[in-house]
Amino acid sequence: MNTNTFTYPRPIPLEHVTIKNGFWAERQHTNRQTTIPAIYNKLEETGRVEAWTMHPEHERRELGSVVHMFWDSDTGKWLESVGYSLCKTPNPDLEAQADALIDMIEQAQAPDGYLNTYFPVLAPDKKWTNLRDWHEMYNAGHLIEGAIAYYRATGKKKILDVLSRYADHIDSKFGREEGKRHGYPGHPELELALVKLYRETGEQRYLNLATYFVNERGQDPIYFDIEAAERGERREDFWAQSYRYCQAHIPIREQTEATGHAVRACYLYAGIADVALETGDKELLEVSRRLWENLTQTQMYVTGGLGPAHSNEGFTFGYDFPNESAYSETCASISLAFWAHRMFHLDQRGEYIDVMERAIYNGSLSGISYEGNEFFYVNPLASYPNIDPYSKWSGINTNKHYRRQEWYFCPCCPPNISRLIGSIGEYTYSQTDDRVYVHLYHDNTVSLDVSGQAVQIEQKTKYPWDENIAITVQSESPVMFDLAVRIPGWCRSFQLSINGEKMSLQPKNGYVVVSREWQSGDTVSLTLAMPVERVMPHREIRQDAGQIVLQRGPLIYCLEECDNGPRLANIVIPDDAPLSSHFEADLFDGTTVITGEALRVEPDTDSPDLYLFKSKVDVKQEPFTVKAIPYYLWANREPGEMRVWVRSS
Amino acid sequence: MNTNTFTYPRPIPLEHVTIKNGFWAERQHTNRQTTIPAIYNKLEETGRVEAWTMHPEHERRELGSVVHMFWDSDTGKWLESVGYSLCKTPNPDLEAQADALIDMIEQAQAPDGYLNTYFPVLAPDKKWTNLRDWHEMYNAGHLIEGAIAYYRATGKKKILDVLSRYADHIDSKFGREEGKRHGYPGHPELELALVKLYRETGEQRYLNLATYFVNERGQDPIYFDIEAAERGERREDFWAQSYRYCQAHIPIREQTEATGHAVRACYLYAGIADVALETGDKELLEVSRRLWENLTQTQMYVTGGLGPAHSNEGFTFGYDFPNESAYSETCASISLAFWAHRMFHLDQRGEYIDVMERAIYNGSLSGISYEGNEFFYVNPLASYPNIDPYSKWSGINTNKHYRRQEWYFCPCCPPNISRLIGSIGEYTYSQTDDRVYVHLYHDNTVSLDVSGQAVQIEQKTKYPWDENIAITVQSESPVMFDLAVRIPGWCRSFQLSINGEKMSLQPKNGYVVVSREWQSGDTVSLTLAMPVERVMPHREIRQDAGQIVLQRGPLIYCLEECDNGPRLANIVIPDDAPLSSHFEADLFDGTTVITGEALRVEPDTDSPDLYLFKSKVDVKQEPFTVKAIPYYLWANREPGEMRVWVRSS
Repeated sequence: MNTNTFTYPRPIPLEHVTIKNGFWAERQHTNRQTTIPAIYNKLEETGRVEAWTMHPEHERRELGSVVHMFWDSDTGKWLESVGYSLCKTPNPDLEAQADALIDMIEQAQAPDGYLNTYFPVLAPDKKWTNLRDWHEMYNAGHLIEGAIAYYRATGKKKILDVLSRYADHIDSKFGREEGKRHGYPGHPELELALVKLYRETGEQRYLNLATYFVNERGQDPIYFDIEAAERGERREDFWAQSYRYCQAHIPIREQTEATGHAVRACYLYAGIADVALETGDKELLEVSRRLWENLTQTQMYVTGGLGPAHSNEGFTFGYDFPNESAYSETCASISLAFWAHRMFHLDQRGEYIDVMERAIYNGSLSGISYEGNEFFYVNPLASYPNIDPYSKWSGINTNKHYRRQEWYFCPCCPPNISRLIGSIGEYTYSQTDDRVYVHLYHDNTVSLDVSGQAVQIEQKTKYPWDENIAITVQSESPVMFDLAVRIPGWCRSFQLSINGEKMSLQPKNGYVVVSREWQSGDTVSLTLAMPVERVMPHREIRQDAGQIVLQRGPLIYCLEECDNGPRLANIVIPDDAPLSSHFEADLFDGTTVITGEALRVEPDTDSPDLYLFKSKVDVKQEPFTVKAIPYYLWANREPGEMRVWVRSS
Repeated sequence: MNTNTFTYPRPIPLEHVTIKNGFWAERQHTNRQTTIPAIYNKLEETGRVEAWTMHPEHERRELGSVVHMFWDSDTGKWLESVGYSLCKTPNPDLEAQADALIDMIEQAQAPDGYLNTYFPVLAPDKKWTNLRDWHEMYNAGHLIEGAIAYYRATGKKKILDVLSRYADHIDSKFGREEGKRHGYPGHPELELALVKLYRETGEQRYLNLATYFVNERGQDPIYFDIEAAERGERREDFWAQSYRYCQAHIPIREQTEATGHAVRACYLYAGIADVALETGDKELLEVSRRLWENLTQTQMYVTGGLGPAHSNEGFTFGYDFPNESAYSETCASISLAFWAHRMFHLDQRGEYIDVMERAIYNGSLSGISYEGNEFFYVNPLASYPNIDPYSKWSGINTNKHYRRQEWYFCPCCPPNISRLIGSIGEYTYSQTDDRVYVHLYHDNTVSLDVSGQAVQIEQKTKYPWDENIAITVQSESPVMFDLAVRIPGWCRSFQLSINGEKMSLQPKNGYVVVSREWQSGDTVSLTLAMPVERVMPHREIRQDAGQIVLQRGPLIYCLEECDNGPRLANIVIPDDAPLSSHFEADLFDGTTVITGEALRVEPDTDSPDLYLFKSKVDVKQEPFTVKAIPYYLWANREPGEMRVWVRSS
């Protein structure tokens, strides 16, 4: 592995982090036991596995599925998730299943390195003719990420070699060099995958290709116009109307706002951050900071969800946060977490990890059912019977509740949340030669080398349910290094003691840095106070005006009908009403809920009239105990209304 | 004219009502001076006039327009509006323009009576092959209505004869009789037009055909399936997914809720009411009452707008009233007024006229600019920059304000609002042999025969700005009849005096009935108190919870940014804040506005953070004077936010 040699910290890789208990151990257990097998079954059922044997279309159709061009990305993400799982939890059956798939993938590769299940069989003359829409590069990126994860977990190099050959093939086709075409991915993803591949293999050409993709994007003449003209199409024919959709409307270095398809945007921005870090390109760092500020200060849901609009699966304009119709794709929150993680390594500030934590615990985790076998593609912040933010026919008397599904025609989200859950260890720590950053709090142990010595750091905590975290350092001999523990942006009051002695250290850039010579057994006790917070919206957010969100620790809460009765819109939580949290051991195997005094405010009449004069009808305010659960757990019990933003007074 | 001979009252026709001053005189002046000529220019510019000369498509395209199948309905509605205008205000130039058009229409008629600009030239083999989608019958209905209005205004029978021949042609093709097909309109409208034609000509077959259309609709097997099969299509291929869209999913007599495309629905229901009245069919009366109750008690916006959804231009489910994305087509409010008017004649209750008045003064009139040359198709109840309820790409950084347009690809609304304004006289009064109903209040004089005598009734009033109405009866000799004056549902307190003497009569079914022998010069003075009312939503309306609408008299009010500054969502009108109204003579030539004390409630911080903890940031409540204008006048000044529902406390 080629780690960078700049001053940047680097993530401590997955294989060094052991998670045996607590919040993420449970999620990872479900991921291994339920999610990974369920996704494989769907890959098989829909023909995505057999597709690698290059069966012609009619045979694929017999498998009961419509072939689409993005199938390979699903395979790639599944393989990546398998890699993360096998990394810490060997499973010979799963490994055999993956190996068989890898054999098929290898055999599907063309002699020139090209690798795709769709084009060679179904449209051989269409290869590389529509980078804008046809996702060959997107598929390649996910397969590369899968290959790297699988190789790192198993040491089996076959799939990495296959994907390296494919990357070489792409490199031979695209670039600024003589004889190459000036293309780049319509759906970014390959950029960040190529940087990963560069780091894994040390091959500079992969970084160069990623850098080329970033720099070429949106340059005049825009490549998507060139290839469209070759297909006999005009720019005006582009279904998405504008290259803002794919962040190619102007060169990257001129971009100042997050635009278009949200997942494309954050995968691209993650790739830009990777290239900025590996090349030391300060201008790209500035571009990244500018886009970050725009996105997080004007276009991010309180859940870390992105993209209000169905039409472009993405961004609209600043401060626009519809709740029921929020698109807020699971993949978008995940991609935001990816980008945030990279931004930290480029620019060490806790705010990036705050956003990463927000996106992971809320908008990402809501994408999977508690049982691990059903998924949301779209994550609204309010739900009402008949309303389906995924459908343009939403609300036409379907009488349905919006619920998670086992699969989607475009099932990008299920394997994405699976790989995120499997790799949470990688998001937990970073380090430089003499500093260890603790980003996320959960029960785990990490083994690392710091200041030239082998060290183990153990976290004991029930976070996010509990505010106490004990961090113990073990090493053979005393070792001098900085332990930088993150004080989350949501935390108004924390206490930190070492071996029982209270320290009064102030956080800088979101971290309290404890610099000392650590003795084996030294324990940092951190308390991150988790009172129930009422969150109010920025004054420009019209959809949430007069409303609050309940937050505790990193978790955004919501009201469900099964706890609070129907007509959640009529519930008011007065500003002075006491709210408290308590742990319910029986709710989803243990969940902290919020309860408090609230009012149900409704016209005091049985009149069927839609519109009532206040001069004639009184308003009744009925006190009751409101109960909120973490947003990510919604839609796991009886169907009904849900609401994140609740009226306040 | 064949008036019905049952006990039903009948409207007093347009030609008997003279409107010289006041609210509607101004609107009609603008309609004559600006709207009617502007619409004709567009008909001409887009090729709709020349189309009657049966020019082939390529010539039509040279006119700069894409031909669509509904063109003839626009011509029909324009001609209808011209008829209403000429009826009371002769204009030889306009009449000559209409006559020339009528000559073209006559020459376009096929020997068998068929009359349509699209099919004979562009798809001669497709005639009558897709009643579900292709609007031949809808076009026929509007042409018939236009022909009747023009004939009644001018006495020129040519166009009425042309359309009678077309109606005969349709009658020869469709019906239950041997050899006829069992079709009916995909877009209802022809039903009510045929009843009008029956009333005008006395030809029973037109009533029979309308009755057949009403009864056949939704019968098993559904005709739309039959014709689809003939075209080689399946029901599942229907783009709108369900025949609920066109109210043909089940037979009319089994229908209990308003469904689908809102304009289709109300035109159909109006036709049903017409058939019920003319045939005395009590079951159809019950069906109508049931549909009425469902629509007005669960599916009508406070503006009298109908149809929350863009996808079907229509209904979704009960109590669903999105504001910014409300479709609420201008034609839908107009069609509701039509239906309400007919319901009154079938079932004499003031609530129908209450809804008619609501729909006319709010959701219909908002469809036209104050200058009379621009139109809304879609009438949202809140507006925000970038949000366009007419576009599925709404909000994708257009930076546009939603504004009225001069024309639309499907311009059904402009001539519809024009014909409504022109015919307001017809909605003002009804009568039986010995009773006169006064439905609407505005400055006008009506001449009628009642109890066998010629009588004139004059209204002097500045309604809806002012609450006082003086109604004076003139006749050659004393005459005994009931004067039934409507006490609107919105009116909590009224006073009625006759020749200065206060009467204490109670309204029954929405009308105070004054039965007496009227002396010429007798004057009824009616005062309908118009305090500012705060309207609150039914408890099931989630989108408006915690908010109020300001209403005064029949007018729904709204806030605009140009009066109140931006961020209207942050404005709170406290329940105890005084609100008052005053007449602004300079605003749109005289408008009553509402002002009062309100608060601008916003976080007290300049932080760019999207989400703020109440534990850390105070809320500031800045008092200011809020100003509301009538909803129908919005978007006539500087562009900006608009909001009908305002937060209360």
